[in-house]
Amino acid sequence: MMILNTISQLNSIVDQAKREGKSIGLVPTMGFLHEGHLALANAAKEENELVIMSIFVNPTQFGPNEDFQTYPRDLKRDTQLAESAGVDIIFAPSVEEMYPENGGISIKAGRQSEILCGASRPGHFDGVLQVVTKLFHIAQPTRAYFGQKDAQQVAIIQTLVRDYNFPLEIRSLPIVREADGLAKSSRNVYLTEQERSEAPAIYEALIKAKEEFLVNRNANAAIELASNHITRNSSGKIDYIELLAYPDLKEVTGDTNHFLLASAVFIGKTRLIDNIIFSFEGETANV
Amino acid sequence: MMILNTISQLNSIVDQAKREGKSIGLVPTMGFLHEGHLALANAAKEENELVIMSIFVNPTQFGPNEDFQTYPRDLKRDTQLAESAGVDIIFAPSVEEMYPENGGISIKAGRQSEILCGASRPGHFDGVLQVVTKLFHIAQPTRAYFGQKDAQQVAIIQTLVRDYNFPLEIRSLPIVREADGLAKSSRNVYLTEQERSEAPAIYEALIKAKEEFLVNRNANAAIELASNHITRNSSGKIDYIELLAYPDLKEVTGDTNHFLLASAVFIGKTRLIDNIIFSFEGETANV
Repeated sequence: MMILNTISQLNSIVDQAKREGKSIGLVPTMGFLHEGHLALANAAKEENELVIMSIFVNPTQFGPNEDFQTYPRDLKRDTQLAESAGVDIIFAPSVEEMYPENGGISIKAGRQSEILCGASRPGHFDGVLQVVTKLFHIAQPTRAYFGQKDAQQVAIIQTLVRDYNFPLEIRSLPIVREADGLAKSSRNVYLTEQERSEAPAIYEALIKAKEEFLVNRNANAAIELASNHITRNSSGKIDYIELLAYPDLKEVTGDTNHFLLASAVFIGKTRLIDNIIFSFEGETANV
Repeated sequence: MMILNTISQLNSIVDQAKREGKSIGLVPTMGFLHEGHLALANAAKEENELVIMSIFVNPTQFGPNEDFQTYPRDLKRDTQLAESAGVDIIFAPSVEEMYPENGGISIKAGRQSEILCGASRPGHFDGVLQVVTKLFHIAQPTRAYFGQKDAQQVAIIQTLVRDYNFPLEIRSLPIVREADGLAKSSRNVYLTEQERSEAPAIYEALIKAKEEFLVNRNANAAIELASNHITRNSSGKIDYIELLAYPDLKEVTGDTNHFLLASAVFIGKTRLIDNIIFSFEGETANV
């Protein structure tokens, strides 16, 4: 496995792979890898001849009061985990390497970003689209891999790829969970022991709400049930719990048959997100 | 030569060319070809193994009161001219083919678009970046060709390619002029005989201003000279005449040694643009 820090180094590798007609799988991450990331790497390995994992804590997707500075980083551990998952190349550029100049051109995520996490984190998805566009052009992947935990992110990136004709396929993989149901997240490391013991209430609440909704088809009642479960079983403060049509993230109507039930909850100072994507026929993994 | 109307048709050709390791030259146009476009096609032919010319009057770069509906179109004539210039593939999609859906993600051209043509045509360069991004992803060119007549467009597209790491090279070619100096433009066809006879005053004015500036290094005096020349020798109404640093399009300072002297003038109802890019050492063709 190679670890590359500059765009020009990666360009050489990618050009060579393209000349040889190799398929390229890209796994964009912010590092501090967990089993969710490794599942993406495993899928990329299965489906592509060259697997590139980017590890880059992207400053432009963090708000001024968010955790960019303190976001957990451990490149040495990440390197070992990535290698064991079959990653061929780690691309770990500095902020200066990724953003040496700024001519003022921006990408605005628009409608799909004005709800859920976008409402709580203004500009977040603009930053995601900026870095993802750059990574897509640098790595020129055949397929790019994202976790369904960031369901809104996947939906917005799908829209980017569709509306701007990126020559690649987005692959979205199911959430990987701890034994007690908590969604794996690099931010779980922030939790105190007490907070960690409360955190599974989030996924429990989503399951209850989904079951309620499938029976009574009343979104408000389902969300209230979830909200009550979290409040009663944890010290969590709810940022949002919403039920939307997926992947367009519009309001649920009588015709909707593909749902995103998504939540963001502060457990202490740590903001945790989770979601279930389902239809009347059952839970579904992909967009 | 092939004429393709759908993205999926072009995808097949591009995929095949990429597999064979062929270089691809893209010449994006709005059609109604003149010698300026053909010079771009000739350069693309010399430097690449496959030449794709897009012919698409892009609605998103026209303002509500601009000439999208009346913009001249003649695909039959364009086809003959493109073939004679060595174009391999004409890509002529419909508006519906290029914009079937809109998920609301936009590209904002920013600072470099707030002056010159951008000030007179709000949103124009956002539309240019939208269609150019799509065409770059669809045609996956090794090199893309643009005329220096749209100097601001070239500068903004250069910034896009640099800041978003598009894997391609932008080639900019000198303005092609009529015998009397008028810059070739598809919009020249709008001019009445009387207007056509007045139109060369624009380029004359730019030459005078450049010469004045090289002697006295006084931008205001140079612009006034150009402005007076146009007013005295034509019925033209000046939209702007400006001298800026090129390619960053910032204000000229004592350190600047690469200039864009650019103008937009209404002759009757027709808005004509022209420019000279020069340094203290002489006129220069490229960025």
